[in-house]
Amino acid sequence: MKSIGNVTPKSMHFASPLALQSGASLADYTLVYETYGQLNADCSNAVLVCHALNASHHVAGTYEGQPRSTGWWDNMVGPGKALDTDRFFVIGVNNLGSCFGSTGPMHNNPATGKPYGAAFPVVTVEDWVHAQARLADELGIRQFAAVMGGSLGGMQATAWSVLYPERVRHCLVIASTPKLSAQNIAFNDVARQAILTDPDYHAGDFYAHGVVPKNGLRVARMIGHITYLSDDDMAEKFGRDLRGKDYQFGYGIDFEIESYLRYQGDKFSEYFDANTYLLITKALDYFDPARAFGGDLTAALANTQAEFLLVSFSTDWRFAPERSREMVRALVKNNRKVSYAEIDAPHGHDAFLLDDARYMAVVRTYYDRVWQQVDRVVMPAHKEAA
Amino acid sequence: MKSIGNVTPKSMHFASPLALQSGASLADYTLVYETYGQLNADCSNAVLVCHALNASHHVAGTYEGQPRSTGWWDNMVGPGKALDTDRFFVIGVNNLGSCFGSTGPMHNNPATGKPYGAAFPVVTVEDWVHAQARLADELGIRQFAAVMGGSLGGMQATAWSVLYPERVRHCLVIASTPKLSAQNIAFNDVARQAILTDPDYHAGDFYAHGVVPKNGLRVARMIGHITYLSDDDMAEKFGRDLRGKDYQFGYGIDFEIESYLRYQGDKFSEYFDANTYLLITKALDYFDPARAFGGDLTAALANTQAEFLLVSFSTDWRFAPERSREMVRALVKNNRKVSYAEIDAPHGHDAFLLDDARYMAVVRTYYDRVWQQVDRVVMPAHKEAA
Repeated sequence: MKSIGNVTPKSMHFASPLALQSGASLADYTLVYETYGQLNADCSNAVLVCHALNASHHVAGTYEGQPRSTGWWDNMVGPGKALDTDRFFVIGVNNLGSCFGSTGPMHNNPATGKPYGAAFPVVTVEDWVHAQARLADELGIRQFAAVMGGSLGGMQATAWSVLYPERVRHCLVIASTPKLSAQNIAFNDVARQAILTDPDYHAGDFYAHGVVPKNGLRVARMIGHITYLSDDDMAEKFGRDLRGKDYQFGYGIDFEIESYLRYQGDKFSEYFDANTYLLITKALDYFDPARAFGGDLTAALANTQAEFLLVSFSTDWRFAPERSREMVRALVKNNRKVSYAEIDAPHGHDAFLLDDARYMAVVRTYYDRVWQQVDRVVMPAHKEAA
Repeated sequence: MKSIGNVTPKSMHFASPLALQSGASLADYTLVYETYGQLNADCSNAVLVCHALNASHHVAGTYEGQPRSTGWWDNMVGPGKALDTDRFFVIGVNNLGSCFGSTGPMHNNPATGKPYGAAFPVVTVEDWVHAQARLADELGIRQFAAVMGGSLGGMQATAWSVLYPERVRHCLVIASTPKLSAQNIAFNDVARQAILTDPDYHAGDFYAHGVVPKNGLRVARMIGHITYLSDDDMAEKFGRDLRGKDYQFGYGIDFEIESYLRYQGDKFSEYFDANTYLLITKALDYFDPARAFGGDLTAALANTQAEFLLVSFSTDWRFAPERSREMVRALVKNNRKVSYAEIDAPHGHDAFLLDDARYMAVVRTYYDRVWQQVDRVVMPAHKEAA
């Protein structure tokens, strides 16, 4: 299926301060974003796609002259695809704290004139959603036909449905969870410790030293990568295959899985910012909408107004199907309209990014329904006008 | 139940070279070991207990004046315990390459007069077993009533049954596997990379620099520790409990699980040798008795003569029950006598070290049978006499 083709990122600057959940605030900030498709006259066909840990606003299409720059969800978003850009106006937005363009630790702190580094405030999923809402305001989008995301992106979709219930008609939460488990947090913290204890981290100010905590980032990514794949998938793809003919009896590469993981770690450590990695894993750890309701997820979701699609994958042991079912049960208790698909797929957590005919068919069918409502929807009055 | 009380380690030096699987050899070596109970007149009541990654020869009892020095399997081994030292003569032996007394990377390389460091040869489970067999020879033990181990110790017990079939009457393989999966190897390799890329590792010669690659070891241990516990057990023990009242919005400790893991990592990095960690994880990765038989585990176990007890634990995702079942099936195909218990326990891989009434009852009952045979056994002639 054809891609949307060449795309160009845009950026928008927000001059008024953003109050953060931590109590800190950002004096001003810039968000980088991309849009695909056309916004219709009454702005009722907008879909927001939220990104996960190592992705960005570049959801679909390619950058001119960079044929390998395909967006991270290009198989999902484009003309005729499950999220059809011939129908919908799709927005990808890079989150605050990222290293891909929106204001983050690599940018200058207006208070010091030097890069923020570790001084960039810890931001939460809810902070991201508030920042995104301002972008929607500027784009004239009072209500999204859908907000959608996988993994950490699914948390943002969930937070949208809670924080801005009247602005979300449909909420698509893929391979996500209403909160991290102790094991999830444990993996994140080991990854953070690898970065924080790398001597090249320099307490977050490594930019000034002209170095990057590559070893720490590399180990962090290797740990993360293991949790994205299923045990079965790794066994299938790599098993105990050796790189050479026999054991090397040393600490080089013996097994193909070692070669693969080290390569993933090396590649990641060359382009990803260590401070961004730290703060995104914290956003993951902190997300827990039920926390303010004594752990009662049903109460936390009581004010939502959206209809929901949740999708989970059978071999995802990072955010297992049970985590999605937990959210489905809470929504059902609230009499929300919920569709839920549990896809029997071998690829672990990464399945949400891959082509799986049943998965794509579920999302496509769901968007058909979203589309049928677009023309009939009576858009709510703009907040200021209310 | 009372402990065996004060114990004292012994050591034995072996002056003739040990040829290793890698092709290298150790010119000479020392093994540190402990024994509990009395060897009977015909030497038919000896049980060898093999240790796992971070343990040692100190299986049971305590060292005089060190009340907190209890052996790692003291709940299993002692007077009246499942492995009853009133009946059996139990041997715990520290493996080659360890940092707890037997010849290892911290000891002087006779060729250079300096610590081996990374030059200590990579040893395999099979190498350990051959070294242990020499100790058995010196102790006058031609045949063990049982060889027993958990996790990596279970691999040694398995290797004993393959390499010295006539010297093992019973083989007890607990929470183990006939080979590591790609995911197991992946976790080991990330742990190794954390150590190898720690600047304080100094290519293995950190002893000369007066430093220890603590950060790397700490991360390695944290990764390992996550894989020893079950997701459920972590959820039960720690959940999302916070150390303080609210989120800290920084990179200190927010969650109890972080506090626990960092503590485990810190503690480990203070006493464990980095080179030992590297080589023991390699021994784990390399173990694969079926490899020489084109992956056919049944063929690999065809020459065994022992009777077997295998035990696995339902929530062990490191070496899951299916890995034990795989070995049970291969033994059954060989018409070996096999008992197998799958214990429904919440504690993940660590369950093999913990008190669980059903688990202990299974092992106790099995050793009752081993004991009933001790008086009736006709010991095989000594190899030299054959």
